[in-house]
Amino acid sequence: MTAAEIKAIGERAEAMLDALASISAEPDRLTRLYLTEEHRRAARLVAEWMRAAGLRVRMDAAGTVHGLLPGSNKGPSAGKRLLVGSHIDTVVDAGRYDGTLGVVAGILAVEELRRRGIVLPFALEVLAFGDEEGVRFPKTLLGSSVVSGSLRDPMLDLTDADGVTIRAALAAFGGDPDALEAEAYRPEDVLGFIEVHIEQGPVLEQLGLPLGVVTSIASQGRYRLTVKGEAGHAGTVPMATRRDALAAAAEMVLAIEAVGMIQSIGRTGDDVRTETLVATVGEIKALPGASNVIPGEVRFSLDIRAGTDRAREEAVAEVRRRIDEIAGRRGVAVRIETVHEKVVAASAPEMVERIAGAVEAVTGSPSHRLMSGAGHDGQAMVHLAPIGMIFVRCRGGISHNPAEYASPEDMGIAVAALVETILGLGAES
Amino acid sequence: MTAAEIKAIGERAEAMLDALASISAEPDRLTRLYLTEEHRRAARLVAEWMRAAGLRVRMDAAGTVHGLLPGSNKGPSAGKRLLVGSHIDTVVDAGRYDGTLGVVAGILAVEELRRRGIVLPFALEVLAFGDEEGVRFPKTLLGSSVVSGSLRDPMLDLTDADGVTIRAALAAFGGDPDALEAEAYRPEDVLGFIEVHIEQGPVLEQLGLPLGVVTSIASQGRYRLTVKGEAGHAGTVPMATRRDALAAAAEMVLAIEAVGMIQSIGRTGDDVRTETLVATVGEIKALPGASNVIPGEVRFSLDIRAGTDRAREEAVAEVRRRIDEIAGRRGVAVRIETVHEKVVAASAPEMVERIAGAVEAVTGSPSHRLMSGAGHDGQAMVHLAPIGMIFVRCRGGISHNPAEYASPEDMGIAVAALVETILGLGAES
Repeated sequence: MTAAEIKAIGERAEAMLDALASISAEPDRLTRLYLTEEHRRAARLVAEWMRAAGLRVRMDAAGTVHGLLPGSNKGPSAGKRLLVGSHIDTVVDAGRYDGTLGVVAGILAVEELRRRGIVLPFALEVLAFGDEEGVRFPKTLLGSSVVSGSLRDPMLDLTDADGVTIRAALAAFGGDPDALEAEAYRPEDVLGFIEVHIEQGPVLEQLGLPLGVVTSIASQGRYRLTVKGEAGHAGTVPMATRRDALAAAAEMVLAIEAVGMIQSIGRTGDDVRTETLVATVGEIKALPGASNVIPGEVRFSLDIRAGTDRAREEAVAEVRRRIDEIAGRRGVAVRIETVHEKVVAASAPEMVERIAGAVEAVTGSPSHRLMSGAGHDGQAMVHLAPIGMIFVRCRGGISHNPAEYASPEDMGIAVAALVETILGLGAES
Repeated sequence: MTAAEIKAIGERAEAMLDALASISAEPDRLTRLYLTEEHRRAARLVAEWMRAAGLRVRMDAAGTVHGLLPGSNKGPSAGKRLLVGSHIDTVVDAGRYDGTLGVVAGILAVEELRRRGIVLPFALEVLAFGDEEGVRFPKTLLGSSVVSGSLRDPMLDLTDADGVTIRAALAAFGGDPDALEAEAYRPEDVLGFIEVHIEQGPVLEQLGLPLGVVTSIASQGRYRLTVKGEAGHAGTVPMATRRDALAAAAEMVLAIEAVGMIQSIGRTGDDVRTETLVATVGEIKALPGASNVIPGEVRFSLDIRAGTDRAREEAVAEVRRRIDEIAGRRGVAVRIETVHEKVVAASAPEMVERIAGAVEAVTGSPSHRLMSGAGHDGQAMVHLAPIGMIFVRCRGGISHNPAEYASPEDMGIAVAALVETILGLGAES
């Protein structure tokens, strides 16, 4: 593709994202939650674009829009399909690229393939999932769990803030809460799932690269820590006899940061891939919380993510060792509760190679591989088929924010790389 | 005094404190705020005890109860008076010893002096102030500021939570908002002010001593710190490129603790008396405060107290140096705002010696000198006359809490030491 063609595709992507961003529950900001009127309008617009691109469109029982481009049905991949796409729901006060870019990129890739007159040996299907963000209901990835047949417990009686159940919302939307399991694709029918998504982090921008190849969606653990010391009067208890829960917690926060730093820097190249480890304390509360009282108790959160489950487990174990040492030395008690642990969703090695080759062909530069610290539909789709993701550089690494931005040029390059990836899979099938 | 006599006095003190503790705004806990119906009832009970002890009783314009024992009016201290006492207001859900013990100890000292048939060369006056805790109105030490003539601005239009002004509450109580300045004693008429008070800290209990001699009421500074880094996604921003405001604040909390430790341990014996330094972070808040977001801003409090103003100023300067170094190294901004700074209220050296001698005579052990980290009426009375304080051991250092406790034995010993101190002053006058 010429630079002019890529630029034109990027500008089309931008216009389509602008159109989707105008569909919001709120006049001055973008908020589009699962199974709402806004979701319905966005799904209809996506379906129109799909039809215009020559796809056969249907909505499934979970509200996911499917657009199918039939293949030639010749060769070893006859009767199979390759899935591409992402989600069209947003967080509250969202940016316009998160999710939607992957759906738009899929549609534009289809248009480009058809423009070139290419008939793939397999079917290509573009998917627009409806609940990746998990904002309206206390559950996420319903759409991709249904398609991938990985829905363990649909928990349809969970409710939103207004008391509406998922079941009722699905029925009102035109979905079918009783047909979810029947929607599952069979692994033997699916070649893979490829998602284009903004990076939501600063790495590609810092490296000066438009695209990155995702090696895995992080292994994640979220924990709640409670440190118990002894409260006391800030004026009357000598320093040497204190058991200050906040001073102890401060040392633990630094130990957590150090584990993130050391394990992420110190072990690159090793197969554990710990170079992608991140450890974060985002919430902290000191009790009783008065300026003239030594804190007797401190509660804080811990979020640890890594490129492999083993790296995350090793990091958590090291954090526990260091925290126990601090607690013992300072005479405070510490409790660590697991909020949740999610196993890694690894990209298929052959998919990583295929995407890396396509990125190098399109950009003319070596490709960069990185972990996705954020969650994605691939965490469900990995149960169905080999997954792969193409990350697109975004300004300042900002996401979940109206300042979210990816340039038309980078989006055009992403569509070109997606087309190259699809063509490569077609050539070998 | 014999052990039996001291024990009997301690038991009387306990009975009187029980009686005062029954006067509360709430049925199940002790809450007695300034200028309330409970304050009035407690003041009446104190006045009855004073009269029974042979004192001439009056209430002044600020609601302080005064009980005067006239002296012989012979010798160099003729016409002068020695003041003893404390306060009868409490915090919400208070203990029964804080303040009230000093008033009761004064009355019991008078009884003991009269029992022995002693006539002092000067007048002895027991004071029961009404607003040491500063809970009802956003102002404290009105009673002792009036007596000591140190009332700069009475701020009578300040209101309580119900919108009642100090002026209106004073008038309703039977005080006189327009006569406050006329109540001031003249320095040339006052020999000193001595207060018996529970320690509200753990030092005497740890040393196994019933009493301590207060060298000063701490120099105190309270500050508000704000650290600004950069918020980001906990999963996507690599450790090495973060400017995590909480990790920076954690390092600052530890630096503050270290300054408290080093300066309090490292410089004992020096005239700056930094051995009594304490530094505390009691409140902390991370923003935006979500477990999956790197904190972009952290706010926390700093409370520093020391035995001298110079020690406190040096400690604050050292904290600033260390915090600036941390902020610079981590690429975060930090702002330090002063909430308030209170200068030290030093006990008069001759009063410290006099009390120490009395404590040694009564207990038969060396006396221990310590700083008061908490505030007291002496902070106002120091503007009128030499001040001195006798601290009484309290269980676990607990105060401002129903678990506050001082034993009858220790209270009896405190009254005996107060009597010895008064007799010593009488003998030299």
